[in-house]
Amino acid sequence: MNRGDAFDPSCPTRVVLDRIGDKWTVLVIGALQDGPLRFTALRARVGGVAAKVLTQTLRAMERDGLLTRTVHAQVPPRVDYELTPLGASLTAPIATLTDWAETHLSAILAARDDYDAELGAR
Amino acid sequence: MNRGDAFDPSCPTRVVLDRIGDKWTVLVIGALQDGPLRFTALRARVGGVAAKVLTQTLRAMERDGLLTRTVHAQVPPRVDYELTPLGASLTAPIATLTDWAETHLSAILAARDDYDAELGAR
Repeated sequence: MNRGDAFDPSCPTRVVLDRIGDKWTVLVIGALQDGPLRFTALRARVGGVAAKVLTQTLRAMERDGLLTRTVHAQVPPRVDYELTPLGASLTAPIATLTDWAETHLSAILAARDDYDAELGAR
Repeated sequence: MNRGDAFDPSCPTRVVLDRIGDKWTVLVIGALQDGPLRFTALRARVGGVAAKVLTQTLRAMERDGLLTRTVHAQVPPRVDYELTPLGASLTAPIATLTDWAETHLSAILAARDDYDAELGAR
């Protein structure tokens, strides 16, 4: 296979799209873009994520080749998470998306208010 | 509110990020980027989406101000879906993401195979 087609229902691009569009994946990519972090620091940076959910997100991202998990032999063991070149190549597309969301947040919230008010007025 | 912060757990940017990162939203934006479509044509273009799921996606996108739903008074009634300027402004960020997914699909699938083979070998 050379290149996927997101509009082909049988193409696994869709599964990938679901994964990289996931909110936590987006935030982890953003959190790691300046360098590796340990689990605790990563969790603090992402903010508001349950440890279990972050662990699952990191495992899925490791499986997809987006990050590496390195265990340093010390007491207590230190575990670093770091973007691979593949993961780092997602930084720009994801920054574009996050930037759009942050920029247009007010417009979206206003649209929701209008929509809900109109429904209520019927 | 001026601008959101995706790394602030209390900021609604996260909700927006979840919505625009959704696979169906991404595909609907792509499907409508060349102009309005009726439900049936839109469903055929997106491909592999259940009517109910597409209806829910379109309603959520209308509420967020990303598209308009126009009912033309004819028999049978014709309903067109069209991106708003806000929705159209999402086209570029989403194309970047879809393009990344299509380009790096092989690398991700290969990474998954390696990961799974390594787990199996333990």
